[in-house]
Parts: sequence; structure tokens; C-alpha cells
Amino acid sequence: MKRQNAPTMKDVAREAKVALGTVSKVINGIPVGEEYRVKVEAAIRKLNYEVNTYARGLKMQKSNTVTLIIPDAVNPFYASFAHYIESALYEAGHFMVLCCSGAILEKEIEYLNMASQNQSDGVIALTYNDIGGHVPESLPLVSFDRIYSNAFTPRVASDNFAGGVMAVEKLLECGCAHPAFITFNSPYPGEADKRKDGYLHACSAHNLEPVYLSTLSDANLVCQITDFIRHHRRADGSLAFDGIFVNTDYNAYITCNILREMGFRIPDDVQIIGFDGITKFGITKDLYVSSICQPIPELARTCVNMVLAKDKGLLPSLTLLPVSYRYGGTTRK
Amino acid sequence: MKRQNAPTMKDVAREAKVALGTVSKVINGIPVGEEYRVKVEAAIRKLNYEVNTYARGLKMQKSNTVTLIIPDAVNPFYASFAHYIESALYEAGHFMVLCCSGAILEKEIEYLNMASQNQSDGVIALTYNDIGGHVPESLPLVSFDRIYSNAFTPRVASDNFAGGVMAVEKLLECGCAHPAFITFNSPYPGEADKRKDGYLHACSAHNLEPVYLSTLSDANLVCQITDFIRHHRRADGSLAFDGIFVNTDYNAYITCNILREMGFRIPDDVQIIGFDGITKFGITKDLYVSSICQPIPELARTCVNMVLAKDKGLLPSLTLLPVSYRYGGTTRK
Repeated sequence: MKRQNAPTMKDVAREAKVALGTVSKVINGIPVGEEYRVKVEAAIRKLNYEVNTYARGLKMQKSNTVTLIIPDAVNPFYASFAHYIESALYEAGHFMVLCCSGAILEKEIEYLNMASQNQSDGVIALTYNDIGGHVPESLPLVSFDRIYSNAFTPRVASDNFAGGVMAVEKLLECGCAHPAFITFNSPYPGEADKRKDGYLHACSAHNLEPVYLSTLSDANLVCQITDFIRHHRRADGSLAFDGIFVNTDYNAYITCNILREMGFRIPDDVQIIGFDGITKFGITKDLYVSSICQPIPELARTCVNMVLAKDKGLLPSLTLLPVSYRYGGTTRK
Repeated sequence: MKRQNAPTMKDVAREAKVALGTVSKVINGIPVGEEYRVKVEAAIRKLNYEVNTYARGLKMQKSNTVTLIIPDAVNPFYASFAHYIESALYEAGHFMVLCCSGAILEKEIEYLNMASQNQSDGVIALTYNDIGGHVPESLPLVSFDRIYSNAFTPRVASDNFAGGVMAVEKLLECGCAHPAFITFNSPYPGEADKRKDGYLHACSAHNLEPVYLSTLSDANLVCQITDFIRHHRRADGSLAFDGIFVNTDYNAYITCNILREMGFRIPDDVQIIGFDGITKFGITKDLYVSSICQPIPELARTCVNMVLAKDKGLLPSLTLLPVSYRYGGTTRK
């Protein structure tokens, strides 16, 4: 982030030979090792780095803003989440500052500093980094899905475990005998990981042998899914499974395309259920695939209520909202 | 917008018996009739209404924020526009405040007031209201597409006229003999209206009889398109046109669905070209329909450069960026 030649936090980090996060902590009064604090303060003096003075003089005054951090606003799930967060904040008399972080920790930290220094009323974060350690306790933080090291951060998510169970039971109800599972997890732990737990639990409950692809990298997504399908193809060309629960609608859509290219009919040969409930154009009722839908407006409202709650001590550390199944053409019903 | 029992601008408007916009103008020092000013000031005193003091004391200090107003973040065009605006602002050292206005003037005015009072560095607006009169000259405003009464507002848009011409010529190149046009315009004038001008110009240049549906209301969208198609059906069941340029990808997608339900094959019987360049899930390369694509990242960057430009007097009042055709399965190539 350029600030017309003025030294930046990055310059301070380079000068002090410490990580950017350490500088951020010193500036925000979060405890760090004494030697680090001394180094950072020396670098700040040497470079004449100015902490954003816009807000420094306003310590007692709230800005009526809440910062939302999402990876991007192009993915329809994140975009829709941002939309409903803005609506709920506005209803409660607050404005939204939006950070599309690209999952870059440095950018997330810059927005957290801005929120802290401008006396923002709080931060709602959907990140792929552990930002817990970069938020002073005085700045209310609510996490969507992600588990932060910061023990006092309340978390909001869909009931992913129940969603995993629901997907398997729906596939069985639609006539499947052997439902498989495909997932590409984030390396950072979060509630979404429980989709797999739900799948495994339902398999066990119904005496089914679990068959799944579960990796931490979505590099070569198409190759990985293609290999998984080929690996489970029998000598007669048929598949060892007749239904697949896929961890997101996007991955389910890719899986459908691969299966169709291999000559399988959907839903006749293989039935597919995704997760999220993404609709075409965001404004039609048409789902891309049959899906376990997340209640995005309710999730957003819950995050906003929590970040603005007066007594943070009363907040549960985890709040799960119910998901629901919707038919989207890739199952029999 | 609720502010925990504190009187709002709306209360002031009710007390003074004037429109909300008038209160906003008085607060922001935009000239109004003397009698209105007196009424509003009396109401402010009577209700003890506090203009946002967060920023009132900071008149000389910029907040390093720019406000973006869009109708919503669910429509993928708006969401993507917001995404690239945020990126370009961040590159330039600014944070984005996002307003999803729902095309509600009152909400737009509240955000404009917040921007003005918090010493925001500017506003980028994609609205369906004429907000030109609600912005003090000191607050830089850049309009995407919409024409405001405010004469000093620079406007950024795609070259919609060239896009209209390009759509017709592409349909002819793909073998169409009679391209039709379908549009649902906003009642507020904007650059997008020129898609129709481009269509009409290309028809004239190629000696074609224009055939179009052009209305100001998108109520009963499906019925209106269905009636238009039926009206141009000949006794033998064939259509009077063999290609349609539709004003947005969303409307083109709806038109494709209607034609398929009526038994027409796309692109064999009718070829369709939309406008916008919306991709499925925002992250795939798959278009919903063949389309005249708007250059969203470049449009966003241009808006940001203009809103932050030092010498506003040097800005052109209108900047048009080139569009491009992309095949999306609903044309022969």
C-alpha cells in the first residue's frame, strides 16, 4: 500500500528486522517480547513513522464503522455474505469498510490496524490466515467459520456436520447405494472441515464403506477429480459409487462437467450434491447443482449482532445455524 | 438507520416538514432556499440533532477512505466491480466503504453524508437515482454509467454504442440474416442506453429492418419476452428473426430459457448475444451466454484514478473503455 513516500509499516518492519505482524502488535499495544518492542520503537523513531493520526486523537470516539474481511467479492458466496453484512450493519446504524484480502495476511493486518486506529466498532472476518494474534482485545472480532488462536473470538458458521449427514441421507433417499465424497480443505482449521465428519458419520450409521477424495491442495483440481473417478471405475466401465457429495457447489459443478465429459449422465448414472446454495446470477432461483444451502442472510445477521453486542462476555464461543437441502437438477429429487 | 434513540436526519426532516435531501443539503452546506434553511436549522436545534461529531472536528484531515455505492453485491457485475474498486483503492493507499443501496435514495444520501462528514476522499457511484444534487462540490464524485444533474461529475462507462454495433455485426458474421434486440432500460438516463443506439445504427448500416422489444419496466420480464417472441412467430412456426442481441447477460440467459422451452434450439434456430461478460461462479472461464464483455478491472481502475486525481479540472467529463466479444455457447462461434 503506497502512501506517497511516507514510511509504511513495512518499512518499519524492514528497518527493525522483525515481521510485519510484530510491528502491528507494538503499534496496537498487543504484548510482544521486550527486545522486539525496543527494536520496533527505535525503527519508528528513526523513520519518523506516523501512526495514522486521523484517529489517534479520537480514542474515546467510535467511528460507526465495522470492517468486513473476505478473500474476494468475485466468489458469489463471499459477495452475497458481504451484501447481507452491509444490510444488517446499516439496519443497526453502522457503515461497512470492506477488505477483499486475497487471503494475503499483510493486507488483512493493514485493515485490522486501520480498524483499530480509526476506532472501528469491530471486525467480522472470513480469512484463510490466523489473524487472531493481530487484534487487540479492545477491538471486537467475530470469525466466520475459521478457528483463530485468539481464544476470545466468537465464531459463527453453518452446521456443517449436520450438512454432511444430510447430503448422504438425501443421496440414499434418492436411490443411491454408494455415496462418495470429494473435498478440498483449507490448510487452516475451520468449521467447513466438519462436512467430512458428517459424511463419515452417516456412512458408519448406514453401514456404508466410505469412498472419498480429501486433500489440502486444490492445485490441479480437475486432474485430481478425474484421477479419483478413473480410480473407481470398474472393468465394465461402471463406477464404484453412484452418488457424490462434494464440499462446495463450485467443486460439484466442476465434478459434473468432468463426469459428463467422461460420458456419464447426471443424475441418471451419478447423482451430485454440493454445499453452499449458490444461485445463477445471484438473483435467479436456479441453483448450479442440488445443494446443502447455507443460510447466508441469517449468518450475516448473526455475525453483526455479535460484533455489536454490548456484553461480549455473554456470547457463545461457537454459534451454528441450520442448513437445508434444495434440489438443483443433479439429483433425482 | 437506527441510532439508539438519538434523533436522526429523518426526524429532523419530519420536524421541519421538508424532504430528507433538504436536511442533507443544509448539513453539508449545499445552497437551499432561505426559508428551508431556517426551518431545518430550527428543527436541528429543537431536536438537539448532532451532526456526526466524529469528523466535524477533523475538517482538515482526510480519512483515506473512498465510498463506493452500488445497488447490491449479489448481482455478479456489481460484486465484481466492487472487488476491483477495492483492489485499486488499496493499491493507492485507500480503504473502501461499501454501500449496497438497494437503489434507495435515502440510503444513498446517508452514505454521502457519512462520506462528506468523515472527510472521505471521494465517492464512486453506480446508482439508479440522481444523487448529483446531494454531493457538495468539495467531495469528489465519479459516476459509473449514470448521468447526474450535477454538471461537474465525471462519468466512466464501457463503450456501449460500439458494443451494440459489435453485437449485430457478430450475429451477421455468424450467419444471422435478421438480428433482433431486447432491452429493459432504467428510467434514469445512462450510458447503457446506447446499446440500443448501436443496434439501430448497425441495422441502418446493413439495410436491416430493426425488430426490438424496448421498455422501461422489467416487471413481468418473462411474460414480456415471451409475448415478443410469440408476436414474431410466423404461421409455419418459424421466427421472423434468427438472432437476438439482449441488453444484459442475465436477460439473455432468461431469453435462452424461454426459447428452449418453446422448442427452439440455440444456437441452431436462434443465436443469442448478451452484454456484460458474466462468468459462472465469477471464477470460472465459462460465460452464461456469448457476450459483449465489459472490461470490469479497467473500469474500476479508471474510476479510482479519477476520484483520487489531484487536478479534477483536467478530467474529461466522459471516459469510455472498449468492450470485446467472447463466445459463450449461444452463437455459432
